[in-house]
Amino acid sequence: MALDARIDEGTAYGRRPGTPNRDLTDTAPGTKMGNLLRRYWHPVGLTSDTTERPKAIRVLSEDLVLFRDKEGRPGLLYPRCAHRGTTLYYGKVEERGLRCCYHGWLFDVEGHCLEQPCEPEAGRHRDQVRQPWYPVEERYGLIFAYLGPPEKKPVLPRWDVLEERAPDDVIEASDYIQSGHKIVPCSWTHHFDNVPDHYHVPILHGSNSGTQFVEMMSRMPKIAWEHTGRGVCTVARRKLDDGKTLLRRVEAILPNIRLVPDPGVSRFEKSESVSWLLPVDDTHYMLYAAIRKKPGWQRAFTKPGGKSWDDMTEPEHQQFPDDYEAQVGQGPITLHSEEHLATTDQGLVMLRRLLLQQAEAVAEGKDPVGVSFDPKAPPDATRAGNFLIDE
Amino acid sequence: MALDARIDEGTAYGRRPGTPNRDLTDTAPGTKMGNLLRRYWHPVGLTSDTTERPKAIRVLSEDLVLFRDKEGRPGLLYPRCAHRGTTLYYGKVEERGLRCCYHGWLFDVEGHCLEQPCEPEAGRHRDQVRQPWYPVEERYGLIFAYLGPPEKKPVLPRWDVLEERAPDDVIEASDYIQSGHKIVPCSWTHHFDNVPDHYHVPILHGSNSGTQFVEMMSRMPKIAWEHTGRGVCTVARRKLDDGKTLLRRVEAILPNIRLVPDPGVSRFEKSESVSWLLPVDDTHYMLYAAIRKKPGWQRAFTKPGGKSWDDMTEPEHQQFPDDYEAQVGQGPITLHSEEHLATTDQGLVMLRRLLLQQAEAVAEGKDPVGVSFDPKAPPDATRAGNFLIDE
Amino acid sequence: MALDARIDEGTAYGRRPGTPNRDLTDTAPGTKMGNLLRRYWHPVGLTSDTTERPKAIRVLSEDLVLFRDKEGRPGLLYPRCAHRGTTLYYGKVEERGLRCCYHGWLFDVEGHCLEQPCEPEAGRHRDQVRQPWYPVEERYGLIFAYLGPPEKKPVLPRWDVLEERAPDDVIEASDYIQSGHKIVPCSWTHHFDNVPDHYHVPILHGSNSGTQFVEMMSRMPKIAWEHTGRGVCTVARRKLDDGKTLLRRVEAILPNIRLVPDPGVSRFEKSESVSWLLPVDDTHYMLYAAIRKKPGWQRAFTKPGGKSWDDMTEPEHQQFPDDYEAQVGQGPITLHSEEHLATTDQGLVMLRRLLLQQAEAVAEGKDPVGVSFDPKAPPDATRAGNFLIDE
Repeated sequence: MALDARIDEGTAYGRRPGTPNRDLTDTAPGTKMGNLLRRYWHPVGLTSDTTERPKAIRVLSEDLVLFRDKEGRPGLLYPRCAHRGTTLYYGKVEERGLRCCYHGWLFDVEGHCLEQPCEPEAGRHRDQVRQPWYPVEERYGLIFAYLGPPEKKPVLPRWDVLEERAPDDVIEASDYIQSGHKIVPCSWTHHFDNVPDHYHVPILHGSNSGTQFVEMMSRMPKIAWEHTGRGVCTVARRKLDDGKTLLRRVEAILPNIRLVPDPGVSRFEKSESVSWLLPVDDTHYMLYAAIRKKPGWQRAFTKPGGKSWDDMTEPEHQQFPDDYEAQVGQGPITLHSEEHLATTDQGLVMLRRLLLQQAEAVAEGKDPVGVSFDPKAPPDATRAGNFLIDE
Repeated sequence: MALDARIDEGTAYGRRPGTPNRDLTDTAPGTKMGNLLRRYWHPVGLTSDTTERPKAIRVLSEDLVLFRDKEGRPGLLYPRCAHRGTTLYYGKVEERGLRCCYHGWLFDVEGHCLEQPCEPEAGRHRDQVRQPWYPVEERYGLIFAYLGPPEKKPVLPRWDVLEERAPDDVIEASDYIQSGHKIVPCSWTHHFDNVPDHYHVPILHGSNSGTQFVEMMSRMPKIAWEHTGRGVCTVARRKLDDGKTLLRRVEAILPNIRLVPDPGVSRFEKSESVSWLLPVDDTHYMLYAAIRKKPGWQRAFTKPGGKSWDDMTEPEHQQFPDDYEAQVGQGPITLHSEEHLATTDQGLVMLRRLLLQQAEAVAEGKDPVGVSFDPKAPPDATRAGNFLIDE
Repeated sequence: MALDARIDEGTAYGRRPGTPNRDLTDTAPGTKMGNLLRRYWHPVGLTSDTTERPKAIRVLSEDLVLFRDKEGRPGLLYPRCAHRGTTLYYGKVEERGLRCCYHGWLFDVEGHCLEQPCEPEAGRHRDQVRQPWYPVEERYGLIFAYLGPPEKKPVLPRWDVLEERAPDDVIEASDYIQSGHKIVPCSWTHHFDNVPDHYHVPILHGSNSGTQFVEMMSRMPKIAWEHTGRGVCTVARRKLDDGKTLLRRVEAILPNIRLVPDPGVSRFEKSESVSWLLPVDDTHYMLYAAIRKKPGWQRAFTKPGGKSWDDMTEPEHQQFPDDYEAQVGQGPITLHSEEHLATTDQGLVMLRRLLLQQAEAVAEGKDPVGVSFDPKAPPDATRAGNFLIDE
């Protein structure tokens, strides 16, 4: 080497392989975070498309079949028929349950085997067979399921913003399509990290891709994060031209609930929606939402160039990245060991700590925050919203 | 939890992961079932499409190249050229064999290296090179191969129903397309289980999807299973409206042969066909058949809505499942540990036991049932058929 | 078995599984060959398409992002943003570097963090963050990168055939499309083996698929191989009808450089091009080339039937195999344990030995052949070419 040559510093040569913190991102049965997630109810489908046609779904790394029997009861069964293992996805829905296509064993929504038609007396020992199942409940247009230990089943929560309705309010449920994808191919934690990470708004949504929301949201906020006991409330203040302040509160609630007020800020009020990040498995998630609204109203989004995600070219995806690109761009599961967290990441640090603490609490036999066993408990109170204040 | 709450029972929470019995389903060299399978001849192609264009095939988890040299000899070679490993799939067929595209080494159907054209004297040491090969024989319009230990090679069986031909009978071979798939993506054992499992007929083919065959086949039969020494014969009786009885015999013969009479019951007679479930590998199989027939005659099948499988929508596949859905719906390899076998499963229990016994016999150095080393042995006698009887 | 039956010999039954020599084919950091490869500069893109739109590339099993900042500097960065791991592929190129889409951290081409816009004072501690990067240099229309230990960075070589230019000569760079594929799905070593393997020319390119080059190249040559110190020079002689001799020299230079004269033999002269086999990873490679030429001149290739590779049917690919089929046909990584090398393989044996020796030398702390630390060293001298001689 020439004696005067500068030696490069900081190159990628010799760096150690990065690793994810799987304690945060695991979803399967028996894992630490999988056990925490299983102590809560999760949305697994829309009321409106849970029908007599069985649906194959995947929730917390488990494959399941969701259907509604002809008497209107939703059912969620392990898909492999207890008899010979054929999937009940090809089963026929009847009044009393779901009948396997292969030999006709009939199971009700709680997995009881009601008929084995080829067997003598339609199955003398059919009572000894149970198709594995999970309890479900319907609320807010969503089917919720509980995949946890039966003796720990909490009541299905109600939410103030969805319960306190004006006479003409309706509740609309959705399985939200994010940038062309109903199932997003990365860990749900990338999105949950994003909830208290409000500083990304003026960059990703406010300057990098132009103004994706509205001008006032593109302004750099001042942010404080507050522990709420069951999550993290992000409190962002933006000075407006008229001297007033936009006060925006965003809530992340354990284990996977987000209250994100309308980013279009069409009104100043409490957030009118609750949404859930459903872990499909370790590297996929879906977003379910329930919104209280006047009939016909829709949140407005700015689409770059007026194109849908699927219609955009690859250079356009690079030019106009959105949450999808930012989150999926972290890989299937982000490499936590490589992160350099800064002061603006305080909110997600608080949220991750709470998740790990609560997973540890469950491992120690305790009940996690936010679960209630009292059917008469009042609706959960929320704080999220956009507010116009003087200060 | 509320004191009066019922605790759910039988949920899918905490269930143990299911496991297959790989002793039944393995196909690779050196596995117990792979060793049993390798003691028999298997169809690996049709005479009619074994040509001068090499075909890449997969048999018992082994990749091979099938071709016919210009003197008419079929050959089955290990695909990686002994010289430098290029696939012989791109080789050129000549009078004496198959020539590698890369450096022109020429191999005959028994793997002898006949030429190394770039080497001095066309390869002074070419006799020391042998391209791995398998013996093949042609019969009934099929190419049969023997992938087992050379010193144990049995004679290629003949079958009475294919040998006893009227003057105008023809033998037609086929590599059957099942629900749009020539290669079915699941273990061959799912189909072999299905052969003595005759009770699925009135459900899967008789009521679940409407009448797929004919009305008399949709009636619930009475079934007995008989050991035949080399397999299991299923004897099904169905009462007809005129007081007569449809007696139907279906045979499963080790290791993977099925004699399934025409499910359309167009005539009452011995089954006119023999078919083979070729294990492509552990999770794929093909169905080869040879049928004795009058020229032009075809078995008739009822297609739901008159649509081919590929033309059906996903909801139509759910509405009209067939053997394909039932068998592939058991997964790539079924989870035997999760099965709840019942009285109607006796036939497949007998068949699985026989397979495991014979695999064990081979492991102990014995010859398995059904192999013969006598070239003058008479054709194998079969019993399968549809018969009309009084009883 | 019949007593007089011949027992088959040399069948594929019972053969042992083949294995590759991974010491030759590994490309990842920390592997023996990966360490050797990392002691040299490699082309990773064309000058002409390294632009303000970031490109996701893969080199020696490492994922990277290549771009050019608005002041014209090319940059090659580890793709996961040092902050929170989002890919810089969706970043925005600015005058001073590449800005992450998510929170706007700005990195220059050497990975320095210039801005953290959401942090107080644009990041009081931003100097402590370094985005992993690799040094790049531009020459001959190519972007070269050095992925090795910084203290061992050699000078980027110059080549005589590219440096000695007539006034109207131009240098044209290309990322060559081989049989429809810019990225070839097999180990780069299959192609490097092919460079001294000149005997394949009269077979693969001269008879098997007809004359792919020109008639004189289809003649069987006499070949000698010479050690050049830094590689292997293949010297092939072909007698022509007029009594003259076509002398063709092909060079393979460590670690992955080839000098292959125009196979169309349009002129008798030194080869006018240098090309590099870029290992994308263990099972994929690309071919970069720089050629000195008169404006407008193109090498001519014979296409079978005048069709492009993508337009050819599968039987046509079998009928007209080319280097792509021969090399990809060896599998993702060839199985060296199964090879039967012959006298005509001496060249590749010499080349593989040299690669393994040099990898061992690097493991022992030595510098490998062909690297220079002297910026004033003259261009590397080459010998490859097509020459017409009397002998």
